[in-house]
Amino acid sequence: MGAVTARLGPSAALVGPGDDAAVVAAPDGRVVATTDVLVEGVHFRRDWSSAHDVGRKAAAANLADVAAMGATGTALLVGLTAPGDLPVAWALELADGLREEAARAGAEVVGGDTVRGDAVVVAVTALGDLRGRPPVLRTGARPGDVVVHAGRLGWSAAGLALLQAGADGPAALLAAHRAPEVPYALGPALAGLGARAMCDVSDGLVADALTLAAGVALDLDPPAPDPGVDEAHVLHGGEDHGLLACLPAGALAAAVGLGCRQVGTVVAGSGVRLRGRPVEPQGWEHW
Amino acid sequence: MGAVTARLGPSAALVGPGDDAAVVAAPDGRVVATTDVLVEGVHFRRDWSSAHDVGRKAAAANLADVAAMGATGTALLVGLTAPGDLPVAWALELADGLREEAARAGAEVVGGDTVRGDAVVVAVTALGDLRGRPPVLRTGARPGDVVVHAGRLGWSAAGLALLQAGADGPAALLAAHRAPEVPYALGPALAGLGARAMCDVSDGLVADALTLAAGVALDLDPPAPDPGVDEAHVLHGGEDHGLLACLPAGALAAAVGLGCRQVGTVVAGSGVRLRGRPVEPQGWEHW
Repeated sequence: MGAVTARLGPSAALVGPGDDAAVVAAPDGRVVATTDVLVEGVHFRRDWSSAHDVGRKAAAANLADVAAMGATGTALLVGLTAPGDLPVAWALELADGLREEAARAGAEVVGGDTVRGDAVVVAVTALGDLRGRPPVLRTGARPGDVVVHAGRLGWSAAGLALLQAGADGPAALLAAHRAPEVPYALGPALAGLGARAMCDVSDGLVADALTLAAGVALDLDPPAPDPGVDEAHVLHGGEDHGLLACLPAGALAAAVGLGCRQVGTVVAGSGVRLRGRPVEPQGWEHW
Repeated sequence: MGAVTARLGPSAALVGPGDDAAVVAAPDGRVVATTDVLVEGVHFRRDWSSAHDVGRKAAAANLADVAAMGATGTALLVGLTAPGDLPVAWALELADGLREEAARAGAEVVGGDTVRGDAVVVAVTALGDLRGRPPVLRTGARPGDVVVHAGRLGWSAAGLALLQAGADGPAALLAAHRAPEVPYALGPALAGLGARAMCDVSDGLVADALTLAAGVALDLDPPAPDPGVDEAHVLHGGEDHGLLACLPAGALAAAVGLGCRQVGTVVAGSGVRLRGRPVEPQGWEHW
C-alpha cells in the first residue's frame, strides 16, 4: 500500500505490512475471519462522508461481525480499489479511519493491497480471537431466552434520512450514519454470560432477528425510539452494527448491567413477531 | 453470498460460510494472512478469461503469498463486487474456480460478501498455517546463498502478448496467462530446507528479486526461456506466481530434487544484477 501502509503506524503483529503476508497471533488455536465490501455509490458517498468516516465504517462493519461471534478483533486486511484521480490525502485519511476504528476494537491493520479501478471499493477482512470460548452462532436460541440489544437502534437510518432531506442536523444522527459506534467489548462479554445466539444488526432489527429465529420465534418489543429516530428506523434501519443476542433469562440482569436493553423474548414458533404479531423484514437499502 | 456460497460445497472449517464470521483452525497459534484485489479491466478481461480462470487466478495470487511465507493455505474469504447485469452463471463459475484453486493449495473458501458495483472486483484474503516454523521473510538473504525458483518463468507474460496479438495458441501459454500453476507445496518445503528469504514472482523476476536484495545483491542467471517465451518475459513478466528463494548453498541439491532451478546467487552489494551487470526492474503492466 506504500504511503497508505506507512500511515498505519508501527505494528504489534508478528509480521506486519510489507512482506508477502502478515503473521498474526492466534493464541486460541482458532481464528475468526470475516469479509465485508463497501462500494462508493452503494454504501457511502464521498460528498456525505469523509474518508475517515468511510475507513471507520468499513472497519466497524467487519469488527462487529467478529464481536458477534463472541470474539475480540485482532487484525484487519484492507483491499482498496481507487480511481487514478483519487486524492492521495483521501486514501491516507481512509487509513487513519481504519486504524482508529481497529484500535477501538483492540485490533490493528496488518496488510493490504491497493489497485486501480473506476470506483472506490474498500474490501476489509477482520480476524479475531475467541480466547478459548466456543463461537456464538446464529443458531441456538431457545424458547424462554431473552433477546437483548447493545448499541444504537435506528440512528444510522435516521441520519441517512436527514442527509437525503438535505438537513444539517442533529449532528449525532448524521455522525451515526457516517460511522457507527459499535459496543465491541460486549460481544465477548455476552458470550461470557452464556449467549446462545448472537449477530450484529447490519440489515435492520427485524431482518437480523430473523436470522436468529432458527427453530424458534423472536417476539420483539423494542424500546421507544430515541429522539429524532422513527420506529421504522428502529425496526428496519441497518448499519448501526449493534449486537443482538439471545440469552438465558437468568443472565438478563447482568446483561443490563453491561449496558444492554431487553428488546424481546424467544418463544416457540417461527419467524419474527412485534409484540405478538408477525412482522416481515423490509429490505434495507444502503443509500 | 447466497447461491455463490452454496456452490462452494461442504466446509471443513470449524464454522463455515453463513454466520457472522467463519472460524478456521490455527493449530500453530499464529495465522498467516494476505489480501489481493483483482479488478476487471486491470487484471483480467471477461472476453479473454472465463469466470473459472478469474476465480483460480484470484485464489492463486493470494495462496502464492501464503506459500512464500513457508506456510500452507487453510482458508479463503472472498469479497465480490458485481454489476447488476453480471450473469449468475458467471458468479457461480467464479466460485468454482476459487474453490478448485483453494483445494490445490489445501485450503477452502470459508466466507464472503457479494455487493453491487459498476465493475467486477474480486478481493480475496487467504489464511495459512506455519506448522511451527518461523515465517520466511523477504529479508534474510546472505552472500553465498543460492537463488532458486520453482514454477514457470515468463509464461503468463508470453500468453498475454499472444492474446494482445490475437493469436489462438500455443494453448499452454494462453492458459498460463488466464490462471497460473503455483507450486504451493514448495513454499513449506523450501522453508524446511532453511530458506533465508522468499517471495512469489508476481511483478517479474527482476522486480521481485529486488525485494529480496536487503543488504545484499542478487546476481541472476536464469535458464534459457521455455519455447514461445522471450527473455524479456522471463526477466520482467509478472503473474506466474512461482516461488523465488535464497537458500544456503548446501541445500541446492535438495531444492533441485524438489523441482527448483538455480536462477542466481547472492553476493555482497545491493540491487539486482544480470550475469554480473546491474539490471533495473521494468514496470509490469497487467494487461
